[in-house]
Amino acid sequence: MPRPADHAADAPGTPAARTPDLATDRLAALADDLVDHRWKGLPPDAAGSRVGALAGARRDLFTGGFTTPVLALSAEAVEHNLRQLEDYTERHGLAFAPHGKTSMAPQLFARQLAYGAWGITVAVPHQVRVCREFGVRRVFLANELVDAAALRWLAGELAADPDFRFVCYVDSVRGVALMDEALRGAETGPATPRRLDVVVELAAGEGARTGARTEADCAAVADAVAATDTLRLVGVAGYEGEVPQADGDRVRAWLRRLTALTAELDAAGRFGADVDEIVLSAGGSAWFDAVADVFAEVPELSRPVLKLLRSGAYVSHDDGHYEELTPFNRVPDEGALLSAFTLWAQVVSRPSPGQAFLNAGKRDAAHDLHLPRAHAVRSAPDGTVRPADGITVTGLSDQHTWLRTDGGDGGTGAELEVGDWVGLRMSHPCTIFDKWQLIPLVEPDGTVTDLIRTFF
Amino acid sequence: MPRPADHAADAPGTPAARTPDLATDRLAALADDLVDHRWKGLPPDAAGSRVGALAGARRDLFTGGFTTPVLALSAEAVEHNLRQLEDYTERHGLAFAPHGKTSMAPQLFARQLAYGAWGITVAVPHQVRVCREFGVRRVFLANELVDAAALRWLAGELAADPDFRFVCYVDSVRGVALMDEALRGAETGPATPRRLDVVVELAAGEGARTGARTEADCAAVADAVAATDTLRLVGVAGYEGEVPQADGDRVRAWLRRLTALTAELDAAGRFGADVDEIVLSAGGSAWFDAVADVFAEVPELSRPVLKLLRSGAYVSHDDGHYEELTPFNRVPDEGALLSAFTLWAQVVSRPSPGQAFLNAGKRDAAHDLHLPRAHAVRSAPDGTVRPADGITVTGLSDQHTWLRTDGGDGGTGAELEVGDWVGLRMSHPCTIFDKWQLIPLVEPDGTVTDLIRTFF
Repeated sequence: MPRPADHAADAPGTPAARTPDLATDRLAALADDLVDHRWKGLPPDAAGSRVGALAGARRDLFTGGFTTPVLALSAEAVEHNLRQLEDYTERHGLAFAPHGKTSMAPQLFARQLAYGAWGITVAVPHQVRVCREFGVRRVFLANELVDAAALRWLAGELAADPDFRFVCYVDSVRGVALMDEALRGAETGPATPRRLDVVVELAAGEGARTGARTEADCAAVADAVAATDTLRLVGVAGYEGEVPQADGDRVRAWLRRLTALTAELDAAGRFGADVDEIVLSAGGSAWFDAVADVFAEVPELSRPVLKLLRSGAYVSHDDGHYEELTPFNRVPDEGALLSAFTLWAQVVSRPSPGQAFLNAGKRDAAHDLHLPRAHAVRSAPDGTVRPADGITVTGLSDQHTWLRTDGGDGGTGAELEVGDWVGLRMSHPCTIFDKWQLIPLVEPDGTVTDLIRTFF
Repeated sequence: MPRPADHAADAPGTPAARTPDLATDRLAALADDLVDHRWKGLPPDAAGSRVGALAGARRDLFTGGFTTPVLALSAEAVEHNLRQLEDYTERHGLAFAPHGKTSMAPQLFARQLAYGAWGITVAVPHQVRVCREFGVRRVFLANELVDAAALRWLAGELAADPDFRFVCYVDSVRGVALMDEALRGAETGPATPRRLDVVVELAAGEGARTGARTEADCAAVADAVAATDTLRLVGVAGYEGEVPQADGDRVRAWLRRLTALTAELDAAGRFGADVDEIVLSAGGSAWFDAVADVFAEVPELSRPVLKLLRSGAYVSHDDGHYEELTPFNRVPDEGALLSAFTLWAQVVSRPSPGQAFLNAGKRDAAHDLHLPRAHAVRSAPDGTVRPADGITVTGLSDQHTWLRTDGGDGGTGAELEVGDWVGLRMSHPCTIFDKWQLIPLVEPDGTVTDLIRTFF
């Protein structure tokens, strides 16, 4: 895993070099956790040792006692992807709050922050808690938050830590009222309660996901915010990934509505006098080129504009959904992403020339957008690795992968034996990460150098 | 949660009354774990307390500080279902090793054993480890196991604990050779290695899942087992749930192949002389009536027959897949199962009369077989609960549920407001359990009385 001097957040002896806003003690404590029955795929003979010791042992993924199925995250691909988005956002003057819901891995949050991210985006209050546990100072919650228990907790966090910056969506007058009610009732002890920063969410269109449907609705929400003592309107946000029948023109047209709304609200004085910068946020993993283009057009406003991109899937990329959708397909001169995941499963049954079955299933593999693809075969007898030619995944059971090995023509079948390991590549990072709680980080030669903890 | 005197495994003061084969100290230790950022939905204001203390506080799921989304498991439904399958298996002379992969919850394994289960079935080596961690003495692995690292670990477990009974599938001569090779190389220290008990798996048909395709293939596998010093053939097994175009006749016809194979192998002396009982196993959650029927016809063999049913989904049942498939629909006089899960999520956006969005998504809800159904609405202002009439789930994003609230006709829309909680019912227990690591067990009045830990 390349560790350039200027990205040395996890280099020995300099854990906090580029991550001053993380609780490095809590990150380091992840290495003190036990290797035990909680983690799929880890070597049974390492039980009782510490996670950090297992990482330090630099075992081989294939011969070092790991059991199948086991998910491998390529250290090289992750580092490449981190650099790509850092470069991209710097080049386009974008701040970056990568969506942390993708990985929910504080060790990766730390790498993202080390590579220049402004903060971390999340989707639900539980994910904010994970961020706070690991000391993430800037959290963008890309949802309205009306859960009273979560708001009470959040009010306490804001009051207790003046360095904690939190922004979430509002998209309804009723949501504003519920937030105000919960925050007014929150106990913050001796600490002074702080206003909670919100951005009004403009929907990506009729029938799209969350967000106020019209600019007039957004203005009404802004008025409701202004009428509270507990909230502060700091900007505008939305998610272009939900634009109906999305194409470059439709996405750009909607993004221009978003930037125009920002300018209108600014001109109307709807952002509080004490707001230092106006937040303007959009950007998933399919249209960040359009976001960069349109955000570059934003006129001068009354205050600096924090143009905040939220793409998250890039960190691992995939083989499928984002492989097809990444903006780098349209702007290859600007970069490229590498797929970082391989799920290794073992052939446990080979009942006919046309069929084989692996011991990984829905519990282990992403399957919501596409079936996994067979990518490589590691031969049980000699450890050679070859392409999975002629092997097709036809289905997943809870704990099995169904393989067709004769191309469907009843032929003699691909060379594949009971005991072989098959490397599967998958579509959709969000549903890969969430099936694994401790993921081996693997060098190109198969050496496991770290174990990445997720919190779902 | 009713606790009849004869099922008092978890009653205060008698933790081991009916579970002598469980590590009650390790089960009890689950209550000592911390309430913290690892668990979705738990009350933020309980952070730092112990799981057992939170359970003992008997908080209300709706008003006790739990955050959304939160999954609720009905204590009443679980207890009802446990009793139903205990009664059913007793009535039909079946031993019962419920499939633990469904829940991967040792606390539920303990309840299943307290309700008379012979042991626990699992699917992969990691799940065997979880069973062993919690002291389950009889484990049936319904797969061939050729992973050398897992076999070495297993050999150690068998050698160290004479009371540990383990049975797994074999379905290929090559699989037998790989198992033998790994077991011969296993280090068991001063303890004497024990032969590993295997059952030959007969496939449910051409094109079905794992299992040797023909009786002749099974006999060849039996011969291969007999030629080793490390394995012992103790029976025959399969999974009728994979019979192609399954109906009652086809399933029964295949089950008769399975029982005939058992009798043939017995007559041919293929079960070792030191085998005390012959294992005959089948039975998922869709055809246990057919299994009971056909297993009742088994003729007298050379030794007693352990007729082992493996159904697992019954413990929570569902609203969807198993609701439709349960054999109790065909034999209602024999019992019925109750759906135990409700996923409570909160309306975070209500952008139009026809649409609303909840803060639960693919990360929280089963979605592999059917979309969730909206079941109930709990009103934010007054806490009243009403049926979710006119509300339809139309899709899931990673962290959102899409609701249609106007019946698709553009009408005025169901009464539903931002802040309301919506109770979702789901299809497929296996993909509900695996999205939650600590699940509130809830009384009918909403009181949370325990927290069920899962290990996926």
